[in-house]
Amino acid sequence: VNRLFEPGGTTPAMAEAVSDAAWVRAMLRFEGALATVHAQAGVVPAAVAEEIVAACTGLDDVVDVDAIGSEAVIHGSPVVPLVDALRRVVSADAAGFVHLDATSQDTMDTAMMLIARDALDLLVADLSSLAEQCADLAAKHRDTRMLGRTLLQPALPITFGCKAAGWLAGIIEARRRLALLRADRLAVQLGGPVGTLGGAPAGRRLVAGLATQLGLADPQLGWQTERSRVGELGAALALAAGAAAKIALDVILLSQGEVGEVSEGVAGRSSAMPHKRNPARSVQARAAFTATLAQSGVLLGAVAGEHERAAGAWQAEWPALTQACLACAGAVARTREALDGLQVDVDRMASNLAALLPADAPRDVTAAQRSVDAALEVFRAAG
Amino acid sequence: VNRLFEPGGTTPAMAEAVSDAAWVRAMLRFEGALATVHAQAGVVPAAVAEEIVAACTGLDDVVDVDAIGSEAVIHGSPVVPLVDALRRVVSADAAGFVHLDATSQDTMDTAMMLIARDALDLLVADLSSLAEQCADLAAKHRDTRMLGRTLLQPALPITFGCKAAGWLAGIIEARRRLALLRADRLAVQLGGPVGTLGGAPAGRRLVAGLATQLGLADPQLGWQTERSRVGELGAALALAAGAAAKIALDVILLSQGEVGEVSEGVAGRSSAMPHKRNPARSVQARAAFTATLAQSGVLLGAVAGEHERAAGAWQAEWPALTQACLACAGAVARTREALDGLQVDVDRMASNLAALLPADAPRDVTAAQRSVDAALEVFRAAG
Amino acid sequence: VNRLFEPGGTTPAMAEAVSDAAWVRAMLRFEGALATVHAQAGVVPAAVAEEIVAACTGLDDVVDVDAIGSEAVIHGSPVVPLVDALRRVVSADAAGFVHLDATSQDTMDTAMMLIARDALDLLVADLSSLAEQCADLAAKHRDTRMLGRTLLQPALPITFGCKAAGWLAGIIEARRRLALLRADRLAVQLGGPVGTLGGAPAGRRLVAGLATQLGLADPQLGWQTERSRVGELGAALALAAGAAAKIALDVILLSQGEVGEVSEGVAGRSSAMPHKRNPARSVQARAAFTATLAQSGVLLGAVAGEHERAAGAWQAEWPALTQACLACAGAVARTREALDGLQVDVDRMASNLAALLPADAPRDVTAAQRSVDAALEVFRAAG
Amino acid sequence: VNRLFEPGGTTPAMAEAVSDAAWVRAMLRFEGALATVHAQAGVVPAAVAEEIVAACTGLDDVVDVDAIGSEAVIHGSPVVPLVDALRRVVSADAAGFVHLDATSQDTMDTAMMLIARDALDLLVADLSSLAEQCADLAAKHRDTRMLGRTLLQPALPITFGCKAAGWLAGIIEARRRLALLRADRLAVQLGGPVGTLGGAPAGRRLVAGLATQLGLADPQLGWQTERSRVGELGAALALAAGAAAKIALDVILLSQGEVGEVSEGVAGRSSAMPHKRNPARSVQARAAFTATLAQSGVLLGAVAGEHERAAGAWQAEWPALTQACLACAGAVARTREALDGLQVDVDRMASNLAALLPADAPRDVTAAQRSVDAALEVFRAAG
Repeated sequence: VNRLFEPGGTTPAMAEAVSDAAWVRAMLRFEGALATVHAQAGVVPAAVAEEIVAACTGLDDVVDVDAIGSEAVIHGSPVVPLVDALRRVVSADAAGFVHLDATSQDTMDTAMMLIARDALDLLVADLSSLAEQCADLAAKHRDTRMLGRTLLQPALPITFGCKAAGWLAGIIEARRRLALLRADRLAVQLGGPVGTLGGAPAGRRLVAGLATQLGLADPQLGWQTERSRVGELGAALALAAGAAAKIALDVILLSQGEVGEVSEGVAGRSSAMPHKRNPARSVQARAAFTATLAQSGVLLGAVAGEHERAAGAWQAEWPALTQACLACAGAVARTREALDGLQVDVDRMASNLAALLPADAPRDVTAAQRSVDAALEVFRAAG
Repeated sequence: VNRLFEPGGTTPAMAEAVSDAAWVRAMLRFEGALATVHAQAGVVPAAVAEEIVAACTGLDDVVDVDAIGSEAVIHGSPVVPLVDALRRVVSADAAGFVHLDATSQDTMDTAMMLIARDALDLLVADLSSLAEQCADLAAKHRDTRMLGRTLLQPALPITFGCKAAGWLAGIIEARRRLALLRADRLAVQLGGPVGTLGGAPAGRRLVAGLATQLGLADPQLGWQTERSRVGELGAALALAAGAAAKIALDVILLSQGEVGEVSEGVAGRSSAMPHKRNPARSVQARAAFTATLAQSGVLLGAVAGEHERAAGAWQAEWPALTQACLACAGAVARTREALDGLQVDVDRMASNLAALLPADAPRDVTAAQRSVDAALEVFRAAG
Repeated sequence: VNRLFEPGGTTPAMAEAVSDAAWVRAMLRFEGALATVHAQAGVVPAAVAEEIVAACTGLDDVVDVDAIGSEAVIHGSPVVPLVDALRRVVSADAAGFVHLDATSQDTMDTAMMLIARDALDLLVADLSSLAEQCADLAAKHRDTRMLGRTLLQPALPITFGCKAAGWLAGIIEARRRLALLRADRLAVQLGGPVGTLGGAPAGRRLVAGLATQLGLADPQLGWQTERSRVGELGAALALAAGAAAKIALDVILLSQGEVGEVSEGVAGRSSAMPHKRNPARSVQARAAFTATLAQSGVLLGAVAGEHERAAGAWQAEWPALTQACLACAGAVARTREALDGLQVDVDRMASNLAALLPADAPRDVTAAQRSVDAALEVFRAAG
Repeated sequence: VNRLFEPGGTTPAMAEAVSDAAWVRAMLRFEGALATVHAQAGVVPAAVAEEIVAACTGLDDVVDVDAIGSEAVIHGSPVVPLVDALRRVVSADAAGFVHLDATSQDTMDTAMMLIARDALDLLVADLSSLAEQCADLAAKHRDTRMLGRTLLQPALPITFGCKAAGWLAGIIEARRRLALLRADRLAVQLGGPVGTLGGAPAGRRLVAGLATQLGLADPQLGWQTERSRVGELGAALALAAGAAAKIALDVILLSQGEVGEVSEGVAGRSSAMPHKRNPARSVQARAAFTATLAQSGVLLGAVAGEHERAAGAWQAEWPALTQACLACAGAVARTREALDGLQVDVDRMASNLAALLPADAPRDVTAAQRSVDAALEVFRAAG
């Protein structure tokens, strides 16, 4: 992660969750769990499995990420050097049982799902906080009349609470989608060299055991070549970032000098104009959405790969998912900050409405107020 | 639809389902249903509603699409001229009740969902057929040994049935995803000028009535500004096209002269080389996937729009969804044709395997065979 | 082309320039020119070449596009059936000389360049008109003070002429880029089955002759597998549409009720709110940019294809370029319409400036005025 | 940069060229050069300018990137905190002259161009090396007969030199494009708060002076809101990565066990199958192309921004350009490694040709050989 301008595009927690250290840890968790389930199946001696698990835990902190990264260039993935490193730190007996039955893709795919799980947990929590903010605004401003605008033109009166309820609806939906993927679609992968291992009963049991060990779903079928869950993740991340960016865009538009209905709690400074109050967080949220969207295309595109393992599309998934998680977190975080302490100028809302609504236009905002109630009800029901 | 090379990128049925005529019909169905539910609510006289419904049905065939299209440029959508046309063909009394409470976006959004429904129905059926083909190949070739290939290198033996079972898994998943969206996410939209109508009890009843009338879902909340269902559609279409393109890519690779394990039933001719047998359908399936993927980016990107109606992003949805449906149908259809009468050379599979597998490599294909059984079981369970 | 809402996304002239009829004509022009240059080389009897040329001209109007489109699905391109049709209408003697030395890709690629040429000619002309509009606004409003806005916040005074000069700069650049591609990069392709024909002296002469015949560039090297010119076209079309969309976006923002500094000459009507004046053309320009951008990704992505002819990426180029041309024309045309008769409220510009600029902010607009002069000078120099 | 798997997607030199340190250096070079040209114009005392320049040079190494990155989140760009830091290390007198006349965007945009220049220099050099490799292969294998393949089907004989000459053509073109942008389109930006500064004579001189100081182009017009050069960069990077990925794809395809005509000099190891020789570098080159392409969409899309500075699109450019440079370097570097020591099996080429070409197919490869000569001639002329 670039440290100069990328902090604006992510959060420290997400940067940690998809860091090299997190990836290494996730890969080693796979290798440890694999030994464990092999021991449960009686294929690996229990003591050996314990040794491997302990080594995996210990290796976490000492493994030379740069060395592995360099070797990864040679082999096309970091699995070969990491497994080599693991074999070096265990006894000769245990070395032969390390990575048993597995192929590089099993390690990477399962690690990717562990990474995705932690990332989604962060995002679901962040979206919950953002939803709370929207809900609070919706409740507080349920009756605050303001201009509704379509195609950026004055339309009819709404309330600011109704606008916030619309934001809330988007965040609820984004959270629902990520939570659903988190629960159903983050599955272990163990297929062996050509992806078939899980087909046979012994393999099925290993897969089921792995799922239990790692707290991931047991996929009905191996997904070595069925990448749609990764594409779904990409799309859901883009939609979550977009739900945040929609709020950010509205905040930017309402913050315009000529509109003046809201301003970010802590405005950004200009290097040239002391009087400026920039909606800096919202601006960054929009940029982060753009970045997320770009990576979602990579992840959706990876679905069509060659034969039993793709020659390029699969390898493109790792950085794309990493970047998508980073950027999505940034979009959500910056939007939260934009709403945190948001200055709402209800007088300005009233005066803009008075100034821009034709005399004969309908004035009633009952439907808008009821929309707030409906959205809050859905939010509370969603828990 | 371009008639010279686009037929390769879609199907006649889909071209019809997303045609101008279909869009007009869908828009008029909305207007008719709106009158009906207003009549049910006692807001519109029953006779007037019947007149409007009849006019909508009648207008279908006589409306001047080109004239409406020209006027749509002026107003930014075809709703204004279509509603004008509808008002012209009903009595003066009825004219005042046409499009009552609705805004252009209500018409377009609900029509888009009706269009999507028909498109998804076609795709789900086409994917079912494609799944059948994959299942047949999987069953028939459950034990046909062939080389498994990762990164396009010889790996270990699988069976051709196992490969087809992998294709099947992708198609089942794609179908499941589209069917889910079809059932849950295609919802009516009726929000009025600023999207709030459904918030109030009377509006809620209209929305619920519309949903019943049109056979679409009743959304919990209005989605005038919550566009994620359109983005989800885009992603699901891309993934469906991609699941087909994955098959097509494998067919192309297996069809290579040096591999020679399969060839399309009806091969394409070359304009220059009489001896060539081109995997023309598979090639077109891949091109169609690329086209679908591009539109999915537009649809995902549309989630972040301005205020109560977006000034550009929303309008980009209509052609993008239309194109995505067309192209997705093409990807699936061409893949079906590629598999239809697919020539499978089991001897060549055997000889390639013998030639390319090292003497000491494992030979067992039990897991591959069992993978077939597992996938077929999932397929049968999916119904 | 969809007739219901696509007219807003293109122009009639562009729809014609990339139509089926235009593609057929371009393909036949290639076949005719090929016979001519073969005759010049003494390979084909002059009378035969004349017969073929005449047949190509005649076939234009009578060829059954739907039949060719249907057969194109079988062969993966419309060339095989079109060449078949051409052979059927010439004498048996001539039939053997039709499409001599060429492969399908030669026909499609050269036709694509002819299509691109006509499309670029239209776009360059449209961009010139749009540039004139911008230049007129820049000159007329050179001294019209208004607020400059960064991050959508009040910054410092500029003039409206200066803003229009900025628009102008973008359009000049977009036009320059397209004109450059038009002049240098639209080249004939004649490579024969594996793309090598132009390597040998006789082939070189054919290529040079074709270039002369068709008024396209003579490429230094064949480009059967070197697709970057198509990618460059895609990028240049996206940038041209984007230069227009930048204007459209500013018009939309300036048209906001709270800003009120400009409004489109002919505003769009709302189906629900009689008082609304929608910036409908600008909105459609933005949507058209989005569509162009999506296709540019397809065209850039097509650069990496398999061996001597790509199995999917190449075939994706035809509809993508067609769509990109249509949408780019739409972006430019709608922006032109938005500026045509644009209502400029100079009083409002003055009052917004007065209201929003801090008392101690610099007031000088000399640099802005001089920016107008500079841009106009560049524009006049560009001719 | 992720260190675990991103090394495969870039080069150390590029990682350094677009690093935080490089960005800070570039930003400070702008600030220093700005003081210098102000001194030349007599606006800033010479001694003060020297002090600022010295401070910029000194600050390079001591500036706290993390602190600046954190503050950048607040202000929406790292310029405010960096300028603050600069002001803190100079005398009170000099502090007032730091960043004089400039706005944050001037610093970021000019820094971005300096970063792009170094990145393009690296890429042009890498592409030259890759071109040399292709040229060597083309020359060495000018007469090595092999099968030409279209749509992945046996077509007609070519030579391996001819294929390499095709690769060369793509690399020459990619290099030409980047070199052209490097020479013509990397321009300084100095516009002040609303981008107009360069319009006035004094400002023009500053811009010209900056261009001289920094070795960048003097733009005819300011480009604060005319972002097409950034989009062009994105497209050119995608096309360069694609030209490399085209080679990589061919290498992967030729490396297939059934084809066996080439293999990478240093093959990647599998974690599960000792016999495998993976084309690991080529695979990574393709993944890196995918990543570049995604970012090119962001950069092209940024062309349409709001008013005098975009609220999101501009900020998205910095990471997108950074990522595009990284990934493009990776695509080129991995392809170079793939070709470095490439094993070419001429016997296999001969036997595949014999096995797959129909008896009556043309055998002549003169045109292919001449294609080699033509490409080499172009390459030598390009220098």
